[in-house]
Amino acid sequence: MGGVHPPLPGNPPSPSIIGPMTQSDPQTDLSSALNRDDANAELFELLRIPSVSADPSHKADMTKTAEFLRTKLESLGFTARVDETGGHPAVYAEHLKAPGEPTVLLYGHYDVQPEAPLEEWVTPPFEPTVRNGRIYARGSTDDKGQMYAHIRGVELLLSQGELPINVKFFIEGEEEIGSPSIVPYLKAHADELKSDVIVISDGSRFAADVPTITYGVRGLSYVEIHVQGANRDLHSGSYGGAAPNPINALCEIIAKLKDDKGRVTIPGFYDNIEPLTDEERGMWASLPQNDGEFANSIGVSALPGEEGYSVLERLWGRPTLDVNGIWGGYQGEGSKTVIAAKAGAKVSMRLVPGQDPVRITKLIQDYVPTIAPEGVTVKVIDHHGGQPIKFDTSSDYVKAADRALQRVYGKPAVFARTGGSIPIVAYFAEILKSPVLFVDMGLNEDAPHSPNESFAVQDYHNGILTSAYLIQELGK
Amino acid sequence: MGGVHPPLPGNPPSPSIIGPMTQSDPQTDLSSALNRDDANAELFELLRIPSVSADPSHKADMTKTAEFLRTKLESLGFTARVDETGGHPAVYAEHLKAPGEPTVLLYGHYDVQPEAPLEEWVTPPFEPTVRNGRIYARGSTDDKGQMYAHIRGVELLLSQGELPINVKFFIEGEEEIGSPSIVPYLKAHADELKSDVIVISDGSRFAADVPTITYGVRGLSYVEIHVQGANRDLHSGSYGGAAPNPINALCEIIAKLKDDKGRVTIPGFYDNIEPLTDEERGMWASLPQNDGEFANSIGVSALPGEEGYSVLERLWGRPTLDVNGIWGGYQGEGSKTVIAAKAGAKVSMRLVPGQDPVRITKLIQDYVPTIAPEGVTVKVIDHHGGQPIKFDTSSDYVKAADRALQRVYGKPAVFARTGGSIPIVAYFAEILKSPVLFVDMGLNEDAPHSPNESFAVQDYHNGILTSAYLIQELGK
Repeated sequence: MGGVHPPLPGNPPSPSIIGPMTQSDPQTDLSSALNRDDANAELFELLRIPSVSADPSHKADMTKTAEFLRTKLESLGFTARVDETGGHPAVYAEHLKAPGEPTVLLYGHYDVQPEAPLEEWVTPPFEPTVRNGRIYARGSTDDKGQMYAHIRGVELLLSQGELPINVKFFIEGEEEIGSPSIVPYLKAHADELKSDVIVISDGSRFAADVPTITYGVRGLSYVEIHVQGANRDLHSGSYGGAAPNPINALCEIIAKLKDDKGRVTIPGFYDNIEPLTDEERGMWASLPQNDGEFANSIGVSALPGEEGYSVLERLWGRPTLDVNGIWGGYQGEGSKTVIAAKAGAKVSMRLVPGQDPVRITKLIQDYVPTIAPEGVTVKVIDHHGGQPIKFDTSSDYVKAADRALQRVYGKPAVFARTGGSIPIVAYFAEILKSPVLFVDMGLNEDAPHSPNESFAVQDYHNGILTSAYLIQELGK
Repeated sequence: MGGVHPPLPGNPPSPSIIGPMTQSDPQTDLSSALNRDDANAELFELLRIPSVSADPSHKADMTKTAEFLRTKLESLGFTARVDETGGHPAVYAEHLKAPGEPTVLLYGHYDVQPEAPLEEWVTPPFEPTVRNGRIYARGSTDDKGQMYAHIRGVELLLSQGELPINVKFFIEGEEEIGSPSIVPYLKAHADELKSDVIVISDGSRFAADVPTITYGVRGLSYVEIHVQGANRDLHSGSYGGAAPNPINALCEIIAKLKDDKGRVTIPGFYDNIEPLTDEERGMWASLPQNDGEFANSIGVSALPGEEGYSVLERLWGRPTLDVNGIWGGYQGEGSKTVIAAKAGAKVSMRLVPGQDPVRITKLIQDYVPTIAPEGVTVKVIDHHGGQPIKFDTSSDYVKAADRALQRVYGKPAVFARTGGSIPIVAYFAEILKSPVLFVDMGLNEDAPHSPNESFAVQDYHNGILTSAYLIQELGK
C-alpha cells in the first residue's frame, strides 16, 4: 500500500543473514534520530504524578496526568482533548493527515496500581530513579512507560517527516480498576475511535532477547467475600467454643474453593473451556522456558498449580483462583484474644477462552453460601471482570508487527499468550469491531503491581523504535 | 477466727428467709456508707489513662497509671510503691496492721486491650461515659473497674474503722499481653507477696442476678503463623497458576486445623484432658442457660462448636482454636490483582485441665509445616501461654466468698468455670503457693476486649461491697 517516508524494501530481509537493522541499515535506521535523554526526562515527569485510580484521594492527579498527555500530543500536531467520564478522565487525540492510508488506534492507560506496601520500595514509587539500567517507579512499565513509548515513537517519525498513516490515541485512566467507564465511552465515541487496527502495549515479552507477539489474554472475574459472625468483636475466652468465628469460616470457604489437584471446585467453572491445541502446546514447549530459573527468579521452591499442565500452559492457557487480599480481627502488634465480628477477602479468577466472566462471577456468588459453615452470613460482591481473548495470528497486522520487531531486534517474534487480563480488549472487539494487536515492550521481571516496579531503559527506547517502525510497516 | 469490726453472726442466715442483707441488716450494712459519686469519679480518672500494654507508644501511660494507683493506696495508709519490671511497671502495696489475722493478696491488672477497631466505639474508649446505667470505656470491666472496686472496698472498710485482716495489693500492667515479666517478679518478691489467699476479680458472673464463684479457668496457647511465598508481590495475571499464593496457603492451613465436627486436628491435642465429671455436667445443666438467647445476644443464628458437648461445656470445659486476626495482600479500597509475598494470622487455643500450653504450642509448631502446601515456607511464632486451672470448691475461702456474696445479693453463689484465661493464676499456685479465689464482678455483656466495653454502675458498687464483706468474712 501507499508510499512511505523513508522508503523501505517491500519485504524484510531474513534475520539469518543480518544483525539488528538498527546496526546494519542506516537508511531505515531511526535509532540514531532518537533523542534518548529527552525521551527519558519526559517519561520521568509523567511518572512523578501519582495517578492511582483505585484511590479517590488521587482524583486531582488523574486530571493532571490526562492534561499532561493532551498538551504533549497537541505539541505533536495532534488534535487532542481530555474527556470527562463517569470516573477518571480519558485522553483522545488524532492525527489524520494520510488520506487513503490505514488508521491505527494506539491504546494505553495512564493510571497505575496502588503503591502499597510502601515500606518495601527501595526508592519512592513516584520519584523515578535509574538503577542498573532500569527505571524504578510505579507505572514505569504498567503502563505509562509502554504507552509513552508510542507517543515518542510518533514524535520520532514526525522528526523525520510526515506520518505514513493516520494515527489516533486513546489513553484511559481506569484500566487498573477494570475500566468501569469505558463501555459507555466507547459506545459514545465509536465512530471517532474507528480504526483498521488497535495496538496495545501493556504487557511483557517472553524474555529480554525475545521479541514477542501476544495473541491471547486471560479474562478476569474479581469478587470480594465478606463474612459476618457476631454483631460485635467478642472475647475469645468468654465466647470461644460457641461463637462462630468469621475468620476461621472465611479460611474454610477459601480452602474449599480449590481441590488438592489445584483445580477450582466451583461447579461449572471449567464448562466450555477451549482446550489448548497440540500446535499451541508444541509451540510453547519449544520456547526457552526453564521452570527452575522461573522459580528461582521469584524465590520459591516449587510452582504449584493445576495438575496435568506445564507451567506456561497454566500461566497462559488455564484459569486460576487467587486470593489477592485478606483481613479480619487484630492485625496490630502483640496479641489480642478476640473473635472478630467480620472478615473479608478479595478473590480473583483468571479466565480462558470459553469462560464468561459474568457467568463465572454468578457461579462463585451462588457457590460460596453453600460452603459457608453454620453461624456466619456471607456476601460475595462483584468487583469487575474481563473477557478472555484469542487473536488470529495470520493477519496482515500481525505480519507488520513481526516485521517491525525484526527491524528492532534482528530476529522474528515468538507467538505467546499472556496470563494477564485486559478487559478493554473485549470491548474493542465488540464495540469498535477492530482487530487488536499486542506489541508488548515490558518483561515479567519489571514487577508490575509490585513494590519496585521498573522498566528497562533499553526496553523503553526499543519500544519507541518498535512503535515508529510498526507505523511504517502498517503503511505498506 | 479472731474478732472483727463490725461484729457479725457466725453463720449467714439462709437466703430463703431474708432479702439482700444490704436492705435488712443495717448493723452489717456498708451500703449506706459507700460514697458512690466519689467512687465513680475516681474510677473515671483511672479509665481516662490509655494504658494499652500491647502498644509501645503507650509506655508513658503505663507509668502514669501505676503512679495513680500507688498514690491512691498510700492515701489509704498502705505502704505502696511502683516496681520496674522488664516490661511495664507493677504496683505493690501492703496494709499489715492485723497481727495474727490472715493475709489476703488482692490481685488485678491496670493494663487494657488495644481499642481497635476505634471507629466502632459509640463514645471514645478513653473518655468514660455513662449510658443506661453502664460505664462505657476500655478497661471499665477488664480489669480497671473490678480491680478498683477492691481499692474502694478497702477504703469503705477503713471509713468504718480498721481492717480486720492484713491486706496486700499486687496490680500488674502486662496481663493483656501474657504477663511476660511476672514470673521473675513473683520469684523476686515471693516472701513479700506471701498470703493465705489470693483474690482475683477479672471475669464475669454467670448472669446479672447470679452471684458466681469461678473455680476454673481455661489455659491459653497463642501463636502467630507466618506464610512466605515469593520474594515479592507478584502480578496475579503474569504469575497466577504457577506462583504459590501465601494467602490461599494460610487459609488451607487454618482450615485443616479443625475437622468438620469442630475438633482440633493437631495430633495429641486432646491427650490427657481431664474429662468433665457428671457432677459438673449436671451442675452446669441446671444453670439458667438459654442457648437461643445467648445466640441472639451476639446476633448469630447458630452456636457452632465441638460435637457432643453443650454450649456451657464447650465454653468452660473444652478446648478451642480460634483465629484472632489475619492479614495479607491488598486490603485497600477497590481491587488490586496481586499475589502477595506473605500472609499471617494470630491463632489462639483455649486449653483445659490436662493440657499443657508449652506442649500444645510445640504440637502446633510441629504440625503446621506438615500441612502447608508446597511452594510456601511457614513459621509458627510462640506469643504466650497460660496454664488451665481448677480449684477445690470446698475450702474455707470459697465459703467466706459465698457468705460475702450472699450479703450483697441475698442468695448463694453458683459455681462456674470461665472460658477465659488468666495465666498468672498458675504462677501464683506454683511460685507463691497460695490458693486463689475468683470473685468476678463483671458480665459477658460488658463486652471486654470489644469496642464499647462497659461495666454496669451497679456491678461496680456491688463489687465494692463484695470486696469489703469478703475481707470481713475472711477474718472470721
